[in-house]
Amino acid sequence: MKQFISVDDVPGVPRMVDIALDYKKNPFKDKGLGAQKTLGMIFLNPSLRTRLSTQVAARNLGMEVIVFNIGKEGWALEMNDGVVMNGSTTEHVKEAAAVMGQYFDILSIRTFPGLVDKAEDYTEKYIQQFIKYAGKPVISLESATLHPLQSLTDALTIRETWQENRKPKVVMTWAPHVKALPQAVPNSFAEWMNNWDEVDFSITHPEGYELDPKFVGNAPVIYNQQEALKDADYIYVKNWSSYKDYGQIINSDSSWMLTNKHLEVTNNAKVMHCLPVRRNLVIADEVLDGPNSIVVQEAGNRTWAAQAVISEILRNQ
Amino acid sequence: MKQFISVDDVPGVPRMVDIALDYKKNPFKDKGLGAQKTLGMIFLNPSLRTRLSTQVAARNLGMEVIVFNIGKEGWALEMNDGVVMNGSTTEHVKEAAAVMGQYFDILSIRTFPGLVDKAEDYTEKYIQQFIKYAGKPVISLESATLHPLQSLTDALTIRETWQENRKPKVVMTWAPHVKALPQAVPNSFAEWMNNWDEVDFSITHPEGYELDPKFVGNAPVIYNQQEALKDADYIYVKNWSSYKDYGQIINSDSSWMLTNKHLEVTNNAKVMHCLPVRRNLVIADEVLDGPNSIVVQEAGNRTWAAQAVISEILRNQ
Amino acid sequence: MKQFISVDDVPGVPRMVDIALDYKKNPFKDKGLGAQKTLGMIFLNPSLRTRLSTQVAARNLGMEVIVFNIGKEGWALEMNDGVVMNGSTTEHVKEAAAVMGQYFDILSIRTFPGLVDKAEDYTEKYIQQFIKYAGKPVISLESATLHPLQSLTDALTIRETWQENRKPKVVMTWAPHVKALPQAVPNSFAEWMNNWDEVDFSITHPEGYELDPKFVGNAPVIYNQQEALKDADYIYVKNWSSYKDYGQIINSDSSWMLTNKHLEVTNNAKVMHCLPVRRNLVIADEVLDGPNSIVVQEAGNRTWAAQAVISEILRNQ
Repeated sequence: MKQFISVDDVPGVPRMVDIALDYKKNPFKDKGLGAQKTLGMIFLNPSLRTRLSTQVAARNLGMEVIVFNIGKEGWALEMNDGVVMNGSTTEHVKEAAAVMGQYFDILSIRTFPGLVDKAEDYTEKYIQQFIKYAGKPVISLESATLHPLQSLTDALTIRETWQENRKPKVVMTWAPHVKALPQAVPNSFAEWMNNWDEVDFSITHPEGYELDPKFVGNAPVIYNQQEALKDADYIYVKNWSSYKDYGQIINSDSSWMLTNKHLEVTNNAKVMHCLPVRRNLVIADEVLDGPNSIVVQEAGNRTWAAQAVISEILRNQ
Repeated sequence: MKQFISVDDVPGVPRMVDIALDYKKNPFKDKGLGAQKTLGMIFLNPSLRTRLSTQVAARNLGMEVIVFNIGKEGWALEMNDGVVMNGSTTEHVKEAAAVMGQYFDILSIRTFPGLVDKAEDYTEKYIQQFIKYAGKPVISLESATLHPLQSLTDALTIRETWQENRKPKVVMTWAPHVKALPQAVPNSFAEWMNNWDEVDFSITHPEGYELDPKFVGNAPVIYNQQEALKDADYIYVKNWSSYKDYGQIINSDSSWMLTNKHLEVTNNAKVMHCLPVRRNLVIADEVLDGPNSIVVQEAGNRTWAAQAVISEILRNQ
Repeated sequence: MKQFISVDDVPGVPRMVDIALDYKKNPFKDKGLGAQKTLGMIFLNPSLRTRLSTQVAARNLGMEVIVFNIGKEGWALEMNDGVVMNGSTTEHVKEAAAVMGQYFDILSIRTFPGLVDKAEDYTEKYIQQFIKYAGKPVISLESATLHPLQSLTDALTIRETWQENRKPKVVMTWAPHVKALPQAVPNSFAEWMNNWDEVDFSITHPEGYELDPKFVGNAPVIYNQQEALKDADYIYVKNWSSYKDYGQIINSDSSWMLTNKHLEVTNNAKVMHCLPVRRNLVIADEVLDGPNSIVVQEAGNRTWAAQAVISEILRNQ
């Protein structure tokens, strides 16, 4: 594996899930694999799970890890070419990425979308500039439009909790929020589920919240949440801002918040969320504190997803 | 040892002092004890000594350490149950603590009191929520009302500097300050000294600065500083804000600042302070730069206190 | 080597260049040298290259590294003696440095000049206070007036890229900028080149930008940039604010920005810069993106310079 930006980079979702679950059983089995190699973790945005689990994963493989909060410990980077840099940016990504590529064996980076310019966000300008200039493998710690470490985690969490001899019905549902959030997690979850034939995947959201068709693919989209959730085995809850009316909050209908009532029509569905989750806004306390929630187990699995990804890149070096 | 929140968690003060002083003689004698284990250090507030010495201590034991400035690198946590999270908090401690408990083998956390709501501070809501949900041993790096790593350090500093064949007289004195400070250090020092029969302990402060009786215990409280310091072998200097008139500065009498004059009535007392200390406000230059001050040695001992605590928790896992 | 503050601390520039280039060939040849020792990296100012490359270098030598952003993770330090600390500083450098000296085997620190009080900056008050009180070897990660890790890097970059059997002509040229920058990099580069007989060194800048004569030494200073650059083998580009009119921007003549046109009179000169560089303000895109620029290679060499410095200090302990 040469990089990890989207599902297109991996040797199959099932294979990645296998590798991750193996590490969960034996975290230190490859503790020499990353010896004398360093992972750089570059944060342009806040992070809890990704920041911590990826460090643990890299150390499990014997790598050194250096964390760099570039905006707070360094300075603002210029992403546009040909600019006279007499404003607020201090260094161009051409230099910054190329320099960091010399210090690190693998670069990982978190960057959020601006949610203003759809074209700019959806060309993944920022992470693509890093890939172009770093000269080393790049791992996405969440980019403007995708969060593949989360999606791999979600797949392995479904695999390890599913016991029956049929494909589970997995429904991703929009939920309300007070802030305009990126589409990265839902885009990525859709992309991974569509590339994984171990599940039956569908999506439900209010009209106007249609995601980029590139990621939705052939997944059924149902505007009636209750109808969509019928017989669901897994509910993947997530808010996102509008793709069409880009970056806008066009609906805050609190009836979309997941409650125990919603679970009644399901097949005793397990409830997932990438976290952080705002309680009683996105998901009700009664669900998060009840037996159907697997959000904490899901978050714990982030370590194994990251370890699978890093190990595959190390094996390719 | 299952956690380290107060003196109640340790197998005796003398035993902890022994362990710490052994590590001071031989820092690397247990360098395999923490192998393949990770200490998470969660900071909600600034820290110098605790931050640095605890990292050194954990590495001496072979542990991995991950530092996380949660407010700056992550986001604000919700501590209250049942809240509709449509405000400034992004994640509930229920999830955050439970998730971090899956990444770390030991969680340590620093959190300060608000100094507004006495009941909330004195129930140690914040650290108790972490203990409740983390599912892993928790070490206090200073909490709302206690700072046990400091107190253990203070005990071992007294032990290693005391040569005579009698109990030293240890006097904790209030000193002025321009900011309203927590009661955590004096509460904790009182608690530890009261639980340690190697010293004679007493307290002096202006009227109105009475500490929580729970921590003062049977220690004599003397309002006349000069009388209290008579024949002292150790003076433990510290400012705190009022417990009664909660969080208020009710006295800023500069005569309470420790000077060489104050030392005249003592038994050539050694002067201690947890640091940081504001010079010429809390303690005069002449004292800090003179032969009686042991504040730097005391701070250096933080490493061995932390190493004793971490090692005892590791041995219990 | 006891400390690393300026060229005066090293056993000769050629020797340091040799050591650094050896590490570039074999980064892990001394991986046990720093075992059970810890490097403290104290940042009062932002940093990218220094922060990352020095961490990599120390780890290559087997050291533990602890990074501390003192202003953001700790608090402001008082640098002046005798002050009543009732203002914004929380801890005196006397305590802070002495305490950190007990946790670390080597202390490294980055601090910038205020660019207001020339005498204060040029006495290097801040780093000298750390040296005075730390009680451990101190490495400059850039101080008020010097940046020796950068200069050593520059020397080894010249050595490794120079193939001819004569001394290269190295010209340091001032370039425009929108902010008032320190003189640390040009001071230090001049100091190192003047102490290295492998190069012919000269300086060019507009009138009024004369550097401290202590660092300029006998290097020719030519006010006509084109004349100065004639037959240059290396051009070292850097902005600095005025030393005479201290900390001021007295000229922003954009003709001093390095372009391909400037290269025409040179001996196909290689172009160097310490980075970060503001494109099309200090150096034109065409130069940075062209074959003459070695700025990224130069930045990559920071690791080997740092490793040489740390190793020499470790060997002396």
